[in-house]
Amino acid sequence: MDKHTDSIQPIAWRNNTLSLLDQRRLPHEQVWLDYEHSDEVAKAIYEMVVRGAPAIGITAAYGVVLAARHAWNIAGVNWQQAMTAPLAHLAESRPTAVNLHWAIHRMTILYESLPEGESPEERLLIEAHSIHAEDIAANHKMGELGANLMNDNSVVLTHCNAGALATGGFGTALGVIRQAFYEGKINHVYADETRPWLQGARLTAWELQQDNIPVTLQSEGAAAALMATGKIDWIIVGADRITANGDVANKIGTYMLAILAKYHNVKMMVVAPTSTIDWQLHDGYEIPIEQRDEHEVTSINGQQIAPEGVPANNPAFDVTPAKLIDAIVTEAGVVLSPSLTSMKAIKGD
Amino acid sequence: MDKHTDSIQPIAWRNNTLSLLDQRRLPHEQVWLDYEHSDEVAKAIYEMVVRGAPAIGITAAYGVVLAARHAWNIAGVNWQQAMTAPLAHLAESRPTAVNLHWAIHRMTILYESLPEGESPEERLLIEAHSIHAEDIAANHKMGELGANLMNDNSVVLTHCNAGALATGGFGTALGVIRQAFYEGKINHVYADETRPWLQGARLTAWELQQDNIPVTLQSEGAAAALMATGKIDWIIVGADRITANGDVANKIGTYMLAILAKYHNVKMMVVAPTSTIDWQLHDGYEIPIEQRDEHEVTSINGQQIAPEGVPANNPAFDVTPAKLIDAIVTEAGVVLSPSLTSMKAIKGD
Repeated sequence: MDKHTDSIQPIAWRNNTLSLLDQRRLPHEQVWLDYEHSDEVAKAIYEMVVRGAPAIGITAAYGVVLAARHAWNIAGVNWQQAMTAPLAHLAESRPTAVNLHWAIHRMTILYESLPEGESPEERLLIEAHSIHAEDIAANHKMGELGANLMNDNSVVLTHCNAGALATGGFGTALGVIRQAFYEGKINHVYADETRPWLQGARLTAWELQQDNIPVTLQSEGAAAALMATGKIDWIIVGADRITANGDVANKIGTYMLAILAKYHNVKMMVVAPTSTIDWQLHDGYEIPIEQRDEHEVTSINGQQIAPEGVPANNPAFDVTPAKLIDAIVTEAGVVLSPSLTSMKAIKGD
Repeated sequence: MDKHTDSIQPIAWRNNTLSLLDQRRLPHEQVWLDYEHSDEVAKAIYEMVVRGAPAIGITAAYGVVLAARHAWNIAGVNWQQAMTAPLAHLAESRPTAVNLHWAIHRMTILYESLPEGESPEERLLIEAHSIHAEDIAANHKMGELGANLMNDNSVVLTHCNAGALATGGFGTALGVIRQAFYEGKINHVYADETRPWLQGARLTAWELQQDNIPVTLQSEGAAAALMATGKIDWIIVGADRITANGDVANKIGTYMLAILAKYHNVKMMVVAPTSTIDWQLHDGYEIPIEQRDEHEVTSINGQQIAPEGVPANNPAFDVTPAKLIDAIVTEAGVVLSPSLTSMKAIKGD
């Protein structure tokens, strides 16, 4: 079964260089872009060469390695000081996914403990590799825990791409779907196309097709009618940030699905590693929501769709309150009916 | 104010020919296509040169005129018999909008009363013009009735295009929005882009922009988060078929909006002429729902988006149960809290 694990990995460290699979060009072309400077990595995150909260975190960790190499080359023993600006730049690349900050913080704790007089690159690279490997391991663990919640012959609906492409590999929501499929528990997967960026059509459909998992695509507007047929057992999605009370920021449209699921008695599962949980925030109202360029809505693939000059509302994420969620699955355990109290079981401190 | 009425009319009878504004090419080009044969009109309806339930009805009425001309030319006194096949073809062009059948039925009642020995074209053309004119008049009446339901400074969300382009002129949902705007009751309109055919982005945004009514576009996935802000007072949509109990078939995604509206205490208004009501059907479960080509989802503007071979679920419409609707506005009156009983007030027989 685990042969499937490594079929898609969007982030690689090769020849002392960070390589990212350019997700803007999938599914039609598989193009890898190489990065040797952390500022370019920040730009790649903003421009969505790489996307998905865990993948952004891993990418940022390798970005810190590149920042450290450059800092040592230009500043020598003052390299720690020279890290401040590039790391701030990385941290600002996207505002909602907390894994980005989590990864930079973890790398910062380490580099502040390192000696001034030698190159920090090797030690930081080992840490970035650990973050990467731990993410994949967490996804496998979540895959098992999430699949345990499901009955045989389930039909599921997923939104956006919380797959191998959004992580180090295997995926969060798609990790659960992969594992449940290998266990014979999934009959069919529906994937929302996920406008405006079409991650569902371009990435999720492609990932599932690669693994021979039966998938049918649909526009978001069709989700309610599909649930009304009674066909759907679970909505399974990832997360970009989860607050202490179990509220979940995820791709725009997730909140819609959660309301529709509640109305139709469909269960709602959120799958995300504990690095996605922001214990500092009490609830979802405190999560900064990224507004992206309106041209992502008014044009598609570079073709203008709407009349020139029409403005667009383009929030990248929305917040689903914990009360609409049946299960949050993390590598540290499953929280059923998430709340400030029930979430403490996975806090682990 | 009524100068706005005629700014956009998608259907015209000119030089003994039916002219349709090609809605597939809006907003970038305004191209008119001419039709002299009813079979070509049926094809134009299927291919969505013209769309929107009332506009399809009007188009079909003119299609009957063209069928009658051809029947008279080829069959002489047996022209009525020669009408059967072309009218069946027209009736099959799209399955969900009942206005199509309503218009063909009305034209049929008339032509069956006409003498065999003379050309029916002139009398049928007068009837088609009446259907067209009555539709525009109904839209103005509905505009007033719908606007009466609204408070000042309203912010509304509409879906698909139920505008001048979907009717003879002025529009149903957009007729109410136009009238309310002229009365100073509307501050802002949000329009769902309405995948897969993007009627919101291409047609509604264009129509409202033409009339200087402030409009902001968004993907369907953003509707729930927008309602959660408390900004939205009304969802206002059209209909393709309404059953005797007040259930409403309309563009895919309407049912989603109705559930989200109920959840957020936003009001839901459906605007449609009585020709949209199918009194023969008890409830929405009986309405045939058109499944359209999956390439409408997997590609956009001729560009393949999804991986080759991925199937798509592409229902053109969904059914919103009456219990989720606050008001059905027709030219015969407003039905609040629609039900089998309350709907009888507008049945008029």
